[in-house]
Amino acid sequence: MTTPIRSNVQALLKSRPSGIPQSEHFEIVTSALPALEAGQLLVRNEFLSVEPAMRGWVNAAANYSDPVAIGSVMRSFAAGVVVASRHPAYAEGDQVMGMLGWQHYAITDGSTLRRKVLERDLSLSLSLGVLGINGVTAFFALTEIGQPRPGDTVVVSTAAGAVGSAVGQIAKIAGCRTVAITGGAAKQQLCLDEFGYDAAVDYKSPTFAADLAHACPQGVDVYYDNTSGEISDAVLRHINKHARIVICGTASVSNWEPWPSGPRVERHLLNKSARMQGFLVWDYEHRYEEAIRKLAPWVRDGSLRYREEILEGIASAPDAIAGLYRGENLGKRLIRLHHD
Amino acid sequence: MTTPIRSNVQALLKSRPSGIPQSEHFEIVTSALPALEAGQLLVRNEFLSVEPAMRGWVNAAANYSDPVAIGSVMRSFAAGVVVASRHPAYAEGDQVMGMLGWQHYAITDGSTLRRKVLERDLSLSLSLGVLGINGVTAFFALTEIGQPRPGDTVVVSTAAGAVGSAVGQIAKIAGCRTVAITGGAAKQQLCLDEFGYDAAVDYKSPTFAADLAHACPQGVDVYYDNTSGEISDAVLRHINKHARIVICGTASVSNWEPWPSGPRVERHLLNKSARMQGFLVWDYEHRYEEAIRKLAPWVRDGSLRYREEILEGIASAPDAIAGLYRGENLGKRLIRLHHD
Repeated sequence: MTTPIRSNVQALLKSRPSGIPQSEHFEIVTSALPALEAGQLLVRNEFLSVEPAMRGWVNAAANYSDPVAIGSVMRSFAAGVVVASRHPAYAEGDQVMGMLGWQHYAITDGSTLRRKVLERDLSLSLSLGVLGINGVTAFFALTEIGQPRPGDTVVVSTAAGAVGSAVGQIAKIAGCRTVAITGGAAKQQLCLDEFGYDAAVDYKSPTFAADLAHACPQGVDVYYDNTSGEISDAVLRHINKHARIVICGTASVSNWEPWPSGPRVERHLLNKSARMQGFLVWDYEHRYEEAIRKLAPWVRDGSLRYREEILEGIASAPDAIAGLYRGENLGKRLIRLHHD
Repeated sequence: MTTPIRSNVQALLKSRPSGIPQSEHFEIVTSALPALEAGQLLVRNEFLSVEPAMRGWVNAAANYSDPVAIGSVMRSFAAGVVVASRHPAYAEGDQVMGMLGWQHYAITDGSTLRRKVLERDLSLSLSLGVLGINGVTAFFALTEIGQPRPGDTVVVSTAAGAVGSAVGQIAKIAGCRTVAITGGAAKQQLCLDEFGYDAAVDYKSPTFAADLAHACPQGVDVYYDNTSGEISDAVLRHINKHARIVICGTASVSNWEPWPSGPRVERHLLNKSARMQGFLVWDYEHRYEEAIRKLAPWVRDGSLRYREEILEGIASAPDAIAGLYRGENLGKRLIRLHHD
């Protein structure tokens, strides 16, 4: 890196949404890049992540992380290459991923980095998806909370998504029968053909409830829930004794103000001695590499497949989260950056 | 037993209730007692149990046990003395408890017996309460699902009840701060004076929400839920990271047809990585004696106190369950039988 990089392009949070953030809540700005101080490194982001949880990061309601401040760079995972370093642990050319934000370049003291990406035989983008927060989430949430056993029926909502598709395949590797809940024929087909689900049902279909029952003749042992709402209500009616329900996301609820109501779950849990448990991947930060060591060989041998949907350029960022909630993506949504 | 007993008095289920069973759903009948066959024994019931779960046993809805058939003896735990035996494992004078039904005498082949009651220094009635299903429920549900740690705040609904009062005291023995939720001043006082709760709040008070918040300045680590409904909704707003919610009963819901709605719990569980799990004591049948061995010394040394409310005579049986749901009892409700 002989020419110093002097300017940055960033997606800032302009105003605070209530519910799902839309284009108008962000603005793209060009700004000067400060010089590196001792202990800092400069990362050229190659891929930015887009994920449902980012809705929670920008809303004011008490959540599992402090909300992004108005006027600051949108918080996000990103993966990139170290282009300059005054940090003893990082050298130019290192691949890294971490909470680097929606911007072309990130200056960090290393505290926002999650890991060096050592799988150089695989695309760097995977460190944001199947070998990143999505895969790690799927792995720990399914194995630690879902505790799948051979022969179990595992039902997954948003089954074609970045997390869901990994869940289905990891459950399959564990010897389970897997049932996908997804929206529309294209995603159903993707679940069956690409992600190896044993059955796939469309929650948008008028026959959804009957289709689900038909797909789960032995009941449901593990429900991996990314949606909440009516989809979950339907699944809960089929849980087996000692079922495990993993609460990983609430994608079907567009707004928690006012807080939505639904059929009470207590009786289901009591009658079936069942368990419903929330999963936050942050709780497993210290075990991140353990998951990657499990997942990477499965990716290499083809038993864990993935889909990426790559948006081009930071200009696609402002609408990217809203698009997730419109259900328009097939696979892990990423933004590939184009540096001048 | 030199004079053979020839007649029995039984409380039969006359018609199937929808919701809470009332007096009119039962009838008291006198019938002839058949002679003992080989392998059978005759138990003179001394105490009959009355508990909230019996509502579920008489309703038609799919539940965790088959409903009691119309015209048959009301299913219940009872404790008594063997008065005749043609069974090799039981002798006259043995104290036993088991699913002996609402009747003066029970003939059994032993399969309906849960245990011989060996604590002869204590009242036989305790085998139906604090040293019976209530104590065993409290012990395993709290320790296995609630997993209390010293310093945790443990909130208990129906805190003065047969299960709740034991939960509070076992949590106290485990080093927790205990908060009672109960109805009315008399039960509040009982919780504080008799069962050693650190605080007691009245769910019937207009200031309940504020009182609860005030009683839980450090939030809630374990919620032992016997009620469901609005009481639980209020508690969930205060749960801490990694909280455990034990679903042990749904006393505040008088009817599950139609299924009631309430604020969705998924977001609470997700934001706090919290767990909500149903508990059925039947799952711990094989560990019953293990609990009794823990509980009996606490009863003897006074660290586990209990209240009994004893109704006199089988004629009090038909209204006894309804009375529980009216909240009129203080302590474990039992029926003492008067044999002619």
